[in-house]
Amino acid sequence: MYPESLQELIQGFKYLPGIGEKTAERLAFAVMDLDSEQVELFSDSIQKVKDKIHACKVCNTLTEDEECSICSDTTRNAKILCIVEDAKSVFLFEKLGTYKGNYHVLNGLISPLDGINPEDIGIDKLIKRLNTQRFEEIIFAFRPSIEGETTALYIKQILTGLNIKITKLASGVPMGADMEYIDALTLERALNDRKEIT
Amino acid sequence: MYPESLQELIQGFKYLPGIGEKTAERLAFAVMDLDSEQVELFSDSIQKVKDKIHACKVCNTLTEDEECSICSDTTRNAKILCIVEDAKSVFLFEKLGTYKGNYHVLNGLISPLDGINPEDIGIDKLIKRLNTQRFEEIIFAFRPSIEGETTALYIKQILTGLNIKITKLASGVPMGADMEYIDALTLERALNDRKEIT
Repeated sequence: MYPESLQELIQGFKYLPGIGEKTAERLAFAVMDLDSEQVELFSDSIQKVKDKIHACKVCNTLTEDEECSICSDTTRNAKILCIVEDAKSVFLFEKLGTYKGNYHVLNGLISPLDGINPEDIGIDKLIKRLNTQRFEEIIFAFRPSIEGETTALYIKQILTGLNIKITKLASGVPMGADMEYIDALTLERALNDRKEIT
Repeated sequence: MYPESLQELIQGFKYLPGIGEKTAERLAFAVMDLDSEQVELFSDSIQKVKDKIHACKVCNTLTEDEECSICSDTTRNAKILCIVEDAKSVFLFEKLGTYKGNYHVLNGLISPLDGINPEDIGIDKLIKRLNTQRFEEIIFAFRPSIEGETTALYIKQILTGLNIKITKLASGVPMGADMEYIDALTLERALNDRKEIT
């Protein structure tokens, strides 16, 4: 019904999560209104992202090079390692611009109920790295969840005996949150971890 | 901060209406999870849509050929013309599958307040067509609005004296609508245009 190339483009958009028929149609029509340069950049970048981007050989962050710009930046503090559950988390922290240590990206979190075991999230590569690089502090920056706690606990056990400070992100009430919409667990954590005002 | 090609892809998505930074990032990350064939189809189709698709020389519908598949379909009723405000409308009607006449696609609707005059929406091409092709009925299928009524009125005046039946889409209560959420104008129209149950 649609011309073939338009139909293909609609299909292309539908490959992406959260995009259904209607949205795909709307976006495909919008592509026709872009100018030629925009179309070329958009089209080329899709192919380029697939061809060029891969995991950093050291930390698994997405990069176009063998080693990512963070790992190869010698001005960063190589004594602190922040372990995250996906590459996107790295970019979230980098946007803050305040963390100056290194990262290690896991391939998700341990979740025995979903059949996701330590070997599935790339623990081997992390252990290998911990055996060669010497860190003073390791920060667990996982989403607050059973899976996050399980993964943190698992890695913590591996580190037993090594003299490394182990920390995790603070739990608590998010900034700007409306008190009545904060869930009970979060409120309980915030109360338990209350901080003295000095 | 992001690798270059990833940054470009995020920019590509941001060219599209309704897609902001966060959504663009989410979609760009999703592209990396597609398989190679999907990526190739998606990337190619963006370029192809821009290169191949243009307006049908007769009716302005989007097509890859000189004349669209609807205009060149001799089994359709060439005596009925449905005038729509954009190419998307054609596909909406074609999805129904019940309309078997021809179409003419305008480039929007007349809106003097926005500086959009008859010549801006391609009235010339429509007049030329009406002078060469002979229709028995013309259907105005514009969105219910001041602009839709203005455009319909303008074209109706051009047709004065010609023996052509002129119709427009029925206004009324949409199917499945909750009575309390129907706006007053729609309800008034529905009441005025009430139909006898036979």
